[in-house]
Amino acid sequence: MATVPAPLARVIQELVKLPGIGEKTATRLAFHLSRTDRSQVDALASALGTLRDELCTCSICCTLAGSDPCDLCGDPRRSSEVLCIVEESADLAAVERSGGFKGRYHVLQGTLSPLDGIGPDDLRITELLRRLEGEAVREVIIATNPTTEGEATALYLARLIKPLGVRVTRIAHGLPMGGDVEYADLATLGKALEGRREM
Amino acid sequence: MATVPAPLARVIQELVKLPGIGEKTATRLAFHLSRTDRSQVDALASALGTLRDELCTCSICCTLAGSDPCDLCGDPRRSSEVLCIVEESADLAAVERSGGFKGRYHVLQGTLSPLDGIGPDDLRITELLRRLEGEAVREVIIATNPTTEGEATALYLARLIKPLGVRVTRIAHGLPMGGDVEYADLATLGKALEGRREM
Repeated sequence: MATVPAPLARVIQELVKLPGIGEKTATRLAFHLSRTDRSQVDALASALGTLRDELCTCSICCTLAGSDPCDLCGDPRRSSEVLCIVEESADLAAVERSGGFKGRYHVLQGTLSPLDGIGPDDLRITELLRRLEGEAVREVIIATNPTTEGEATALYLARLIKPLGVRVTRIAHGLPMGGDVEYADLATLGKALEGRREM
Repeated sequence: MATVPAPLARVIQELVKLPGIGEKTATRLAFHLSRTDRSQVDALASALGTLRDELCTCSICCTLAGSDPCDLCGDPRRSSEVLCIVEESADLAAVERSGGFKGRYHVLQGTLSPLDGIGPDDLRITELLRRLEGEAVREVIIATNPTTEGEATALYLARLIKPLGVRVTRIAHGLPMGGDVEYADLATLGKALEGRREM
């Protein structure tokens, strides 16, 4: 016999499908939702219900957006001279939150991963090259993740873009702020030494 | 300017209201939902949308249920002689998952907490006393949390129920299984010594 009533069990069953949410967390959330202000549950249900209908892909930078072109591509105050390439829309949001970038973005929607059968044609590289031809881009900043796939993709893009006469840079890798030299992993510490700067 | 498109921002805004979900987790979940199988998002939205309409309170044990009486109260195989008193429906689900109890439950829907203005009349104690009169209960197991409020509620209930000629017991407190004597807190270790058993 089930230990929770069926309507709660359905919510739990859907919540455990989400990343990082196990059965305990899902159960706690479901019980919270069954006790909390009803309008809050309805607001969440409605936001989820309309999410996929209201999201589209920006035809310029290929990010998830509420409109096409997206707010960032449609903003005339942003510089078209610098283009930041990221793997996913979530990465774009993270770079944007840092507030350190005022140029434009391009979302690859993945990384090269031959083992998973993902090649250049599966990424938004054709769209990227078309932008580099059409827009007056001076510099491309590659902000793919510092993983094997992210590094391979960065290398592939650099080889592809450099011949077009565009400057290609990679975001810095090193110790995270607040980090600890003693506990840094070897690869990070190696990158931090390699990327040292005059002060 | 917002760093995420409006439909995603709405989902994030609702998710951060949930306990234990901060802005980073909410953002990760929202991006996951925007990428994942669409039917999964719809299933979650619909489970949430119907949750509150389909939940009711069992008129016997006062737990959250899909039907009245709940599945547990309606199950003739469960013993009516032992009654386990818990604070919340989530606690009932936890005891039930342990598989160690085959009696019936009563959910208080809270604990005595004078500082928050919660007295005996705010809990389902009237319903409890009515059950003790009407049903042939031999033993009441008090399974409120081992917190100040839970202990006070347990004490209050014991004083109320004992005069009715019903045996009143409290769940054991001690070291959790897999726990470590060295790292146990003083109160837990004290309870573990106090509650020692012949072996």
